[in-house]
Amino acid sequence: MGDPAAPAERAFPTEAAQSPHRQVEYRIDRTLRLRNDNQPGVLGEVARAIGGVGGNIGDIRTVQRSSAHVVRDLDVTCVDLAMLDLVLQAVRGLTHTRLLDVRDEVLRVHVGGKLRILPRYPVASLADLRRVYTPGVAEVCRLIAREPAAADRYTMIANTVAVVTDGSAVLGLGNIGPVAGMPVMEGKCALLAQLVAVEAIPILLQPGPPDALVEAVARIAPTFGAIQLEDIAAPACFTIAPRLQERLQIPVVHDDQHGTATVVLAAVTRAAQLVGRPLPSMRAGVVGLGAAGFAIAELLLQVLDQPVLGSGRTPDSIERLAAAGGVPVELDELLACSDIVIATTAHPGLIAPEQVRPGQLIFALSNPVPEILPELALAAGAAIAVDGTVVNNLLGFPGLFRGALDTRARRFTPGMFLAAAEAIAAQARGDELVPDPLDPAVHRRVARAVARAAVAGDVARVAPPDDDE
Amino acid sequence: MGDPAAPAERAFPTEAAQSPHRQVEYRIDRTLRLRNDNQPGVLGEVARAIGGVGGNIGDIRTVQRSSAHVVRDLDVTCVDLAMLDLVLQAVRGLTHTRLLDVRDEVLRVHVGGKLRILPRYPVASLADLRRVYTPGVAEVCRLIAREPAAADRYTMIANTVAVVTDGSAVLGLGNIGPVAGMPVMEGKCALLAQLVAVEAIPILLQPGPPDALVEAVARIAPTFGAIQLEDIAAPACFTIAPRLQERLQIPVVHDDQHGTATVVLAAVTRAAQLVGRPLPSMRAGVVGLGAAGFAIAELLLQVLDQPVLGSGRTPDSIERLAAAGGVPVELDELLACSDIVIATTAHPGLIAPEQVRPGQLIFALSNPVPEILPELALAAGAAIAVDGTVVNNLLGFPGLFRGALDTRARRFTPGMFLAAAEAIAAQARGDELVPDPLDPAVHRRVARAVARAAVAGDVARVAPPDDDE
Repeated sequence: MGDPAAPAERAFPTEAAQSPHRQVEYRIDRTLRLRNDNQPGVLGEVARAIGGVGGNIGDIRTVQRSSAHVVRDLDVTCVDLAMLDLVLQAVRGLTHTRLLDVRDEVLRVHVGGKLRILPRYPVASLADLRRVYTPGVAEVCRLIAREPAAADRYTMIANTVAVVTDGSAVLGLGNIGPVAGMPVMEGKCALLAQLVAVEAIPILLQPGPPDALVEAVARIAPTFGAIQLEDIAAPACFTIAPRLQERLQIPVVHDDQHGTATVVLAAVTRAAQLVGRPLPSMRAGVVGLGAAGFAIAELLLQVLDQPVLGSGRTPDSIERLAAAGGVPVELDELLACSDIVIATTAHPGLIAPEQVRPGQLIFALSNPVPEILPELALAAGAAIAVDGTVVNNLLGFPGLFRGALDTRARRFTPGMFLAAAEAIAAQARGDELVPDPLDPAVHRRVARAVARAAVAGDVARVAPPDDDE
Repeated sequence: MGDPAAPAERAFPTEAAQSPHRQVEYRIDRTLRLRNDNQPGVLGEVARAIGGVGGNIGDIRTVQRSSAHVVRDLDVTCVDLAMLDLVLQAVRGLTHTRLLDVRDEVLRVHVGGKLRILPRYPVASLADLRRVYTPGVAEVCRLIAREPAAADRYTMIANTVAVVTDGSAVLGLGNIGPVAGMPVMEGKCALLAQLVAVEAIPILLQPGPPDALVEAVARIAPTFGAIQLEDIAAPACFTIAPRLQERLQIPVVHDDQHGTATVVLAAVTRAAQLVGRPLPSMRAGVVGLGAAGFAIAELLLQVLDQPVLGSGRTPDSIERLAAAGGVPVELDELLACSDIVIATTAHPGLIAPEQVRPGQLIFALSNPVPEILPELALAAGAAIAVDGTVVNNLLGFPGLFRGALDTRARRFTPGMFLAAAEAIAAQARGDELVPDPLDPAVHRRVARAVARAAVAGDVARVAPPDDDE
């Protein structure tokens, strides 16, 4: 830990971090199919041409190769369509390269939606039909009517999660409505299926008052083993999630609150390790007390020896923090007093470099543009500085749900979130703040930690699975 | 058509039809694994032993064969567990046969539920993740926010059906609640996936007043391209289905009403063909005006030249029939005046053989025990007589939904139900009243007929698919 800035710089992976174009909104992904003359240096020319106008090159795949030519697919990321035009222009200007095609792979993988719902046992004969459907199914129905617990074994309910949104705060896009939010819900469901074998079902709610949303989700809750609320705006989310949990005997979580908080706590835990300081003794300040910020403050209150400082925009949010045991302060004071600064304000550039204290850990999490660019914070003396791209919710929710479902937990507890955060942090290697979110083993270990915490917390109905990895 | 009784007898397929044990409730399916001495006549002994105590043998599969022994799995159906005991006792008493195992294959195929929800594009790399999830997904969300119609292409919504129940009238089991009804919902979803490639999602409603159920389903409706209500008791279903349809711009159907009516009309249409009479000129009477009975009467009113007769138990049901244009009469009069009698009363043996008129077409549809046994009705002179096992809803709903979704229909119309019934009837061959429900081609043709009717009825948004079989 001789040079505390180094790990953070490496923990922030993309080239775009250093790009002067970062201050612009979302990124455009395209795949260019190029036919190059098969001679040394040509791919270098292509890379220079694309990089020269600000485009980022991702994966490169060779499609075809002859003695004369090489056909390759290049994934290119641009800040906006104007930059994409510059990239295409630059590529078309090259002598040894011909642009064969520009494909929008993003749209392609969303065609028809991202989920398939398939029978576990295809029905091939009338005998199968008698088993899967009538009359056999009546036997299963009567068994469950007689012994309700049999539903855990003979239906999908206990392994099924609803991913529910009203579309009021989708990604950084705001209130775009439930249907426009569907691609995100499908994506979360697909990832739950792939990473932890949960059956996840997207549910879109016609927008309405919190009471009506609670009522609708409670009404359909018998279908599910757990409920993941998703992309619901503050302050509605502060009432919807707890009211639903109060009414239901299955775990309910708003991913943008406690899912995010879990992953942030994991990154904070790891950052403290990397700078060699015990986390409980550190002082933390949360800037921005919306859905994510308040949940982060709540969770930090569980692990730190002193109250969490917080700075919020609305009187409500300040009151909420105080009620939870936090200490509302002004931004200046927060920045001056905190070892750890976590910002979720959606205010680009809110934190000036001269406000950064030497040795601070800075998590400027607003997407797409952070409160302070990591490189500026590091230059101003921060020990570690990252933006929102490091804190991927995907590290949290799969293991949280797998662990909760495996133990038939009735609710998520702070202990389960803390256990998940610890398990995530413990799997980061070398300079990483967090481990690879696509590694299934990561999620299995998080799930096991969550399951243990569920059982320890006395909120579970059965023992956690005993399988060893 | 020289012997009008013949086709009906053959249209009624199972041995159980002639069994004296039919008057008992649901059937038990088991698979017996037997090791027989490998010598002629042993399987015959087994079959005699099982049949001798009333058991029905279904499929037989050879598992293993040596010079000394043959191991086989026999599917056996019994009326109840007492009969199963007799079967096992009889088999255990055989000299050349050893009973190795008794398996409950019905329960086995329900373990873990009957659906898998899987990603269409597994995420193998961070580049995939960028496309399927953030940041790529934001591009898709913004496209849909800008052009709502793009959701048809870039989400699963337009191909997704909710299969919704409150569990108030599941199969013949009555009000067993939504969770105990789940195996039926999963089965319907699995069959929709297999037969017509619809993504179908089971939704269980916490029971409540019709208004609350309508409210909840309407609230989650943005998720779906169509809604199949299922196993909802009368009279609540009479208000829930139409109120939902009134509020939504997607098709809503209660399968136990119009799904059943469609398949019954198909069987009636085919029966009229088999006896060589034009259906419109025939007089029909419906006995029992519950969910199915009333819907059948409504649909028959569309195709017959004269009003449908009906006999109902409650003043409400009689009023409802009269309002729809039917003619309420007493049971005796109905039976005396109708060429076609359709009974859905759940009253075993309601119709006495002496009430049957020669040449009548009798559909005694109550499960598990009909209003009159087909063999008694035939003996009393009915031209065709069947029970509820012939009228399988599975022939109707897959094609109805495929056709409605393909044309983006906003609602189901009588024309769509009639077209489906005609298409089903047209595919019956030889003596059959209806075609094989497991033949995907059957459902493709029904779907096409429904799509044409949707477009012709001016309730569709796009042209039907043009693909040829």
